[in-house]
Order: sequence, then C-alpha cells, then structure tokens
Amino acid sequence: MPVDYPREFQGFAITDPKDWDHPKLTSYEPKKFGPHDVDIEVECCGICATELFCLKNQWSSEPLACLSSAYGPKSQVVGHEVVGRVVAVGDDVTLCRKGERVGLGAQCSSCMACPRCHAHNEQYCAKSVATYCSRYEDGYVSQGGYASHVRAHEQFCFPIPAEIESQYVAPLMCGGLTVYSPIKRGIEGLENPHVGVIGIGGLGHMAIMIAKAMGAHVTAFSRSSKKRADAEKMGADAFVATGEQPNWSKDLFDGFDLLVNCASSTTQLDLDAFLSVLKVNKNFISVGLPEMDDKFVLSPLTFMGNGPCVGVSKLGSRQEAIELLQLAATRGFRPWVETIKISEAGVHEGLTRLDAGDVRYRFTLVGFHDFFGTGSS
Amino acid sequence: MPVDYPREFQGFAITDPKDWDHPKLTSYEPKKFGPHDVDIEVECCGICATELFCLKNQWSSEPLACLSSAYGPKSQVVGHEVVGRVVAVGDDVTLCRKGERVGLGAQCSSCMACPRCHAHNEQYCAKSVATYCSRYEDGYVSQGGYASHVRAHEQFCFPIPAEIESQYVAPLMCGGLTVYSPIKRGIEGLENPHVGVIGIGGLGHMAIMIAKAMGAHVTAFSRSSKKRADAEKMGADAFVATGEQPNWSKDLFDGFDLLVNCASSTTQLDLDAFLSVLKVNKNFISVGLPEMDDKFVLSPLTFMGNGPCVGVSKLGSRQEAIELLQLAATRGFRPWVETIKISEAGVHEGLTRLDAGDVRYRFTLVGFHDFFGTGSS
Repeated sequence: MPVDYPREFQGFAITDPKDWDHPKLTSYEPKKFGPHDVDIEVECCGICATELFCLKNQWSSEPLACLSSAYGPKSQVVGHEVVGRVVAVGDDVTLCRKGERVGLGAQCSSCMACPRCHAHNEQYCAKSVATYCSRYEDGYVSQGGYASHVRAHEQFCFPIPAEIESQYVAPLMCGGLTVYSPIKRGIEGLENPHVGVIGIGGLGHMAIMIAKAMGAHVTAFSRSSKKRADAEKMGADAFVATGEQPNWSKDLFDGFDLLVNCASSTTQLDLDAFLSVLKVNKNFISVGLPEMDDKFVLSPLTFMGNGPCVGVSKLGSRQEAIELLQLAATRGFRPWVETIKISEAGVHEGLTRLDAGDVRYRFTLVGFHDFFGTGSS
Repeated sequence: MPVDYPREFQGFAITDPKDWDHPKLTSYEPKKFGPHDVDIEVECCGICATELFCLKNQWSSEPLACLSSAYGPKSQVVGHEVVGRVVAVGDDVTLCRKGERVGLGAQCSSCMACPRCHAHNEQYCAKSVATYCSRYEDGYVSQGGYASHVRAHEQFCFPIPAEIESQYVAPLMCGGLTVYSPIKRGIEGLENPHVGVIGIGGLGHMAIMIAKAMGAHVTAFSRSSKKRADAEKMGADAFVATGEQPNWSKDLFDGFDLLVNCASSTTQLDLDAFLSVLKVNKNFISVGLPEMDDKFVLSPLTFMGNGPCVGVSKLGSRQEAIELLQLAATRGFRPWVETIKISEAGVHEGLTRLDAGDVRYRFTLVGFHDFFGTGSS
C-alpha cells in the first residue's frame, strides 16, 4: 500500500521492548508541521547501536515514551542516520530547499535561542529533541528514519556534497559526527597531533579515518591483534593490542594529545593505563554508548602524574556536520558499509547482527524508494 | 646546640608513622650539593595537609622511604611551603643569588631536559622529586622545611616581591600554587569567566582570592552556611550552601567555566549535580588531597548533557609560581594565616590541629631564626 504522504508516514515500529528485534511496517501520523520543519523522503538509513538501547528501553526505567505521547503513534520507529531528499519546507525555512539531498543525524530539534544554540553547541541545548524516542514540547514523540519520511527542524538537515554516495553518508550522520566533534575540539590548533582511538568498531573505524584525514598521527587500540590489518587499511599509523603487549602504556608514555574512547564499555578499560599515555592536561573522551549502570571509576591519586581530564562528548553541531561532510568529500575516506535492503526481514537482520557484534563496520539500510514506492518526486 | 651548617641541617623529624604527631629535633646530613642546587636558610614554613599523609605514611603500602635511603637520615622532616634566604648557590646557578629571599614549594627537582620541563610543565616531569619523602636519583630521600635549611634545585626557588611578608608567602608556595595553576589554565582568554570553588578550607580560601584577583566572578560552595561570611570577606561574589539549597544545581544550570574542587574527599560530593552546572565542554578540576582509596565514580550517561571533563591538577610551574606572587603583590590579597612558633610543641600543635580541622585557614610556622640560631648571615 503506497504511503499517503503528507497525511501519514510509514515505518518499521515496535510497541513492546520485549519484541525489540521485530519492528513491523506501520502507518502513522507525523508531528505537526512547523514553520522551520523540513520533510525528508528517506533514501537510506544507517543502523546505530543507540537503536538497541532505545528498542530494548534500556536507558529508562519508564515505559516507552511513545506509549504516552500526546498525539501520533503509540509505536516507535528508530533510525537516526538518515539520507534523503527534501520534499517539503516550512514557511520560515532558509537552510534547505525542496529537492536537495540532505542528511539528518541523532538530533532533530533544539530551542535555537539559548546560549548553547547560539554558540554552535545546539547538541547540548537543554530543550534538544532526539530524532526518535524523544518528546517534543507539544507532546509528540519523535519517530526515526527506518521510514518513508522523517520530519525535522531545518537546523539538523545538512546539505551533502555530490561526491559522496548516500550509503556512505548515512553512518557519518550520527557515528561519524559523534567522533568528529571531540577530535576537532581536541586537536584544533595543535601541530602534528597524536590521537589514540580505543575500540575498533562502528565508531572507532570512523574515528581512525577522520583523525587521519584531519592530519593527526593515529594509533588504534584494540584488545587483540585481530583487527590490526583492518585498522591499518583505515589509516592507523600504529596499532596496539593492549591484551598482548603488557608494557604498552610504558612504551607510549607522554604520547597523546587526545584519546577517543569508542569502546562500548568504560568499566572494562584499564583507565589508569590509558590516562598515563596522555601528554599534560590532555583529554580522554568517551563517545561509546554506555550501559545504564556503566561507570568511570578513577583514583585521583593515580592520575596526578600528568593532570589529564576524563569526559564525554555528545553528537556534534550543524557546523561540525557540514565540516565533516566536506572533509569526507575532499579527502575521500568512506565508512566501511554493508548494505541491507529495507523490509521487516532486513530490519530484523540488521538489528540482530548488530546486537551480536556481527558487523564490519556499519550497516546501511537501503532500497527505501523501492520498498515505499517513493523517489519519483 | 647551634646548627653546624653546611655539614648538617637541623629539623623536626619522625621515624615511625605511628608517632606522626611528635616530630623530634634532629640533626642530619643534607643531600650532596649539586651545581644547580641552592641552600635556603629557612625563615618560616607553612603547614600543608600533605604532611599528614606523609607522616602517617597513608599514600604508600611500603615503609617510609627514608628508612631505605642510600645515604642521609633514616628519619623524615616534612614541610614544603618554605620561605627563607639563599645562603649558598651551586656553580651553575643563574636563577637565584646569595642573600635573596625565595620561596620553595612541594617540588625540589626535575630533569630539566624532557618535553614537559621544556614546556613549563616541570611539575609533571617523570623524574620530579618532591620536597620531602621523595627519592633523588642518588638515593637520598628529600627532607622538608620544618628545618633550619633546605636544599633544592634553583628552578624551584622563586623570588619573592618585597611587598609580601614571609608568613603570607608560605601558604602560597604549595596550596596557593596548586589552585592558581588550574584556575589560570582554565580561564585564560575567557571574558568574564565564572569560577566555582568547592570546599572553603586551606586550598579553597586561597582559590577564592586568587580567582577573584584574576578577574573572575567567584561562587563559593560549601555544605552549610557556616563559612558564608568568611567566603564573602575572601572575595566570593556568591555563596551556595549545597546542603541547605535543594535546587541549587537547577538554579545554576550552565553557569560555570570552571569548577575547582578543593574538598578533601571526592567520594562524598554529588558530582552529577556539580557537573550539570558547567557550561559546555568545561572542566571540573580536583586539587584536594585524596585518601588513597578515594574514587571518582561517574556515570557517562548522566553527564552527556554538557560534555564536561573531570580531572586533577598537580602543583604549578615556576612560571606560574612567579605569576602568583606578582598577583598577590599587585592585587594585595593575603592568605588568612595563623602563626605558630616553631618548636617540638609548636609542630605538634600545628599538625594535630590541622588533623582535627581546627584551622582558619592556614598555619605558618614562624620564628625559625630564633629557634635555630640562624638569620645573621
């Protein structure tokens, strides 16, 4: 049945976290169209690990937010690495035009009025709305990109350079931006910066490419040597198998301007060892998605040797998203993507394989036009 | 018995951590005199909480380092907020001259050759030697400033502006420098920076004065209102009693460019609340002295709202020590000091009162010339 746009969108939704891996094709009412809103007719969408936390409802002790939405569906569509064409723009939109190919990441709205929004930190706006599972002020709960269409504020719809195919753009919209922002903020203005990337998965593999493209000397850290060849192909200048090189932290003393932790758990890392390889007053920044009870446990005494800082980073700004896309266009790096055709079976396959760690290194769901009968506009 | 300088120094020493609060007058052999060494005839010396950790041997699972020194005393003199006159300089000394009044803080040596030493980060040199309880490369264990004389590398002997009386200089040499360095590094280049100081004790009271003298808007945080009047006299623009204002962190959202944690324990702080009042990508820096088993326990999820960093800072550089002394001279702030005449009884009183928290806000041991029969050189 074709999508009755703009009255409805279609997407793959769940209603019960127990059935997280079986999203079903569903029609639903979109959010009310605002003057700064943009409708994207989706062409493809990456699969991000955040989806697993949302669908399983692991970051909350409340029922799924959609079940208490003020209007719109009582079901949840995920997906926040969206690429597609603009098919409608609100009256006040100036950042996009109809027909343009744009990308949308994990954030779809912010207040646009606070100091953070004014300072290219809209991802930290207190009124930020995430692209799915997140409540707008009018009570609608946002619906994601495993769908025919997505509606978002223009600020979060990024123009895509013609050189990059959509399937490679998708993972950059959340994962890529999430690592780009702390790398940029961490090495800006440094000569010959040394960056360490911890954990060579979906995020880490992009962090290696991005840091390299930005001119850094990049060291990839993994527990074993299994991913050495991959990391080198991605552009790593050095590779450390922390589980196989007992003295690695002594050998690398004072070696890094920035560590980007892309590992999914911080609890299992030897943080003291990692902190000891930073230069003075440099940062260890975590971007991996933590379990709800994940902790940093740090002894102030053991890291007095170099005065480092431990922090987290969340997404990136519009400005950074545009810079990242330009960097990928001009420097030619591309995420390593396996494509899966969208359908109930395809969504199930992608989610369950990601959950099992069976991905090298990122999935993009494709074939949206064929499936939804869109793409002719 | 007068000090037989330069053959021997005299000081107040312990040999057993069980008897930490009864240092006894002792004569001892100084470290071998090197070409960059300076001898300071001590005039006064601050009492710093580090002394308690060292004397009680709480930061180590080994016996007191002095018991296994290659030469020199098998006893330990503490004290690293030293003020006195230079009475001897090594052949290669260029930074001090005989007769000059200088201050010495918690560090007495570093390699002077590594990248950290070359970049005004000698406090983080891997070969740093602390002013007491610390082993030199030749096996001597450093002896502190509750003494007639101290020997130190010229790099760590700072010229003192004539305007400041010695008893007020002493606490600046360790405690003052320890808070100056992270404040300077945290707010440099910012317009109208907002600094929060957590814990109004020996360190915190100087942090308030220093941040204020550097032009910051300063908020003092304490559990109760007991120290409100003191904090305001020190220069705090605002005061928050975290135990009495349940919504303090909501009221102060997005308010701070830097938090300096001067509280003695990090384990008891509501870190999530403190992190939430930082602006985006700003730092919470701990300088309070931790217990050996003290921990930061942080949930990555709960501080994704503003991407802050948590870190520690250790002492400061020579450059920063000189800046701090200039700041105190030109801006006129002075630590709040209670003086105690040096003697076995005086040292005992100072240490036990500090251990009991009975100090407003810093002790300086004075009267060294009278006690040791020095000061005529």
